[in-house]
Amino acid sequence: MATNVQILLASRPTGWVEESNFSIVERPIPEPGPGELLVRNHWLSLDPYMRGRMNEGKSYAAPVEIGQVMVGGAVGEVVESANPRFKQGEFVVGPLGWQLYSLSTGDGLMKVDSKLIPLSCYLGVAGMPGATAWVGLLEHCQPKAGETVVVSAASGAVGSVVGQLAKLQGCRAVGIAGGSAKCDFVVKQLGFDAAVDYKTGDLNENLRAATPEGIDCYFENVGGEVLDAVLRRLNPFSRIALCGLIAEYNLPEPLGAKMIRSLLVNRAKLQGFIVSDRQDLYMRAVTQLARWVAQGKIKYHETVAEGLRSAPAAFIGMLKGKNLGKQLVKLV
Amino acid sequence: MATNVQILLASRPTGWVEESNFSIVERPIPEPGPGELLVRNHWLSLDPYMRGRMNEGKSYAAPVEIGQVMVGGAVGEVVESANPRFKQGEFVVGPLGWQLYSLSTGDGLMKVDSKLIPLSCYLGVAGMPGATAWVGLLEHCQPKAGETVVVSAASGAVGSVVGQLAKLQGCRAVGIAGGSAKCDFVVKQLGFDAAVDYKTGDLNENLRAATPEGIDCYFENVGGEVLDAVLRRLNPFSRIALCGLIAEYNLPEPLGAKMIRSLLVNRAKLQGFIVSDRQDLYMRAVTQLARWVAQGKIKYHETVAEGLRSAPAAFIGMLKGKNLGKQLVKLV
Repeated sequence: MATNVQILLASRPTGWVEESNFSIVERPIPEPGPGELLVRNHWLSLDPYMRGRMNEGKSYAAPVEIGQVMVGGAVGEVVESANPRFKQGEFVVGPLGWQLYSLSTGDGLMKVDSKLIPLSCYLGVAGMPGATAWVGLLEHCQPKAGETVVVSAASGAVGSVVGQLAKLQGCRAVGIAGGSAKCDFVVKQLGFDAAVDYKTGDLNENLRAATPEGIDCYFENVGGEVLDAVLRRLNPFSRIALCGLIAEYNLPEPLGAKMIRSLLVNRAKLQGFIVSDRQDLYMRAVTQLARWVAQGKIKYHETVAEGLRSAPAAFIGMLKGKNLGKQLVKLV
Repeated sequence: MATNVQILLASRPTGWVEESNFSIVERPIPEPGPGELLVRNHWLSLDPYMRGRMNEGKSYAAPVEIGQVMVGGAVGEVVESANPRFKQGEFVVGPLGWQLYSLSTGDGLMKVDSKLIPLSCYLGVAGMPGATAWVGLLEHCQPKAGETVVVSAASGAVGSVVGQLAKLQGCRAVGIAGGSAKCDFVVKQLGFDAAVDYKTGDLNENLRAATPEGIDCYFENVGGEVLDAVLRRLNPFSRIALCGLIAEYNLPEPLGAKMIRSLLVNRAKLQGFIVSDRQDLYMRAVTQLARWVAQGKIKYHETVAEGLRSAPAAFIGMLKGKNLGKQLVKLV
């Protein structure tokens, strides 16, 4: 008989995550109690925010405890249900964790249409990362046609949607990414106007060349020198959505930013945000994104690791920028 | 016959301003042409923003050119007028510069009531600094009763109003200032709930003790380590009005901030602003402040230098934090 496989947090990383921070266990598949349902997960999402949950320190969400199943979004099929809201055979997405089978009360689960777009899209372009792009850019930056929008980690699950949404708004979309493959991808495959490879040449020079009219909106996923380079190019009344700081998640000391003064001189707004605070916008965002994906107006790319046991290595690779587009683990 | 005395920008400072960066000249008092008026200035305002105007670099306003009269707000009496909007004997406030007599087209001049409150107040508590406090705190931070509001440079012209406005909103008001005299002043004279002396002891420890429930709103005038100390104490959904960064105005390299991550984790907003962008709020702010001053609801303190020729030394002293409350130069 099949067993459940789970990946637990075994120890807290100091600096870079290592595979030894995780442990893999096999357990019996649980039985749904009253009001519960059992989901067989098809795809597991790997996202940068998970790095924060591995820490003990204060963050916007409680940390994962040692010995607990790692938190994570997954999409899967309801295989048993004692919850009247969900029927066997339906597909759901939600916080199902790093495991093959998940027991759920239904809280935080959303039903998805497996015929409109591929199931895996509900973890990426039409899921939490896509909604993050939507809320950060459209709600917090409010780009106007003709403005220049810059996004860092541009080829990632969030960044790739940010740039395409900027194009749909009539903006100039400029991506910052590491390496020519990622830069080519966002320009040639996703339709960004330009891309800057932060690993090659002078970042300030290259960003200046890519943003001849300055920067009006910035969607920040990275931090460090990338943030400072953008701050130097801000236009008056520019808006920054602060979504992530992956450059410093694995460092013992924060990098911070030197060019705070540019925020003052340019009367800029910087807004830290987390998509889960905006349940008021979430459904509208993913519904719109799913439709645009189905219509071909928004494209996506996935990097797929095979099998749950590959999740730790794939997660570490993603933190080091080895993925292109959405990093997934295929479970079925 | 009387002559006009003017203070010109003689050279651009590198690092700290020196008196040699200014030159003092005597010139004939000008005659108003058609549509112009002549103002005899009674009080000159000295403000931190003037340091920025001495630089060549990009800022929110054009720099003062070498050989030009230093920019600055002043309040004075109309002594001759060929402008139908202004009559001899009226008092006006506006960008009249570092000089005894100013020719004006009337642009940017506002008439003031010399009977409601002392004339000098229109340069401080009921002038640009007061309006800056009002816009930054009430518009950009929107403090709610019971929240904790922190302001740096708390005993200055802007900071002293910020804390009193916070009290009027029902907030806990905490000032950060340098030295026990300034800290005593904001607590005992202005009614702040607490003050932290950034020059004594451990800033992080002392700020923690003064903000037991964290920080919801921060009005930033200083930057550097003060900013980082506040960022460490932010509450979720906190708001920062970025008004000034006086700690780095005289440094060749910016200080920046280390704790950008706190803005992300706490979904904080940081808004750079300049009061002159908000003409829509300016009149409402100064009218309300003048009334509160007349009613005794808002208190103020002035540091007065005697005579225009004392302006350079007084300005340098203000940049080094030697003033308490509003720094003025008495001209008449």
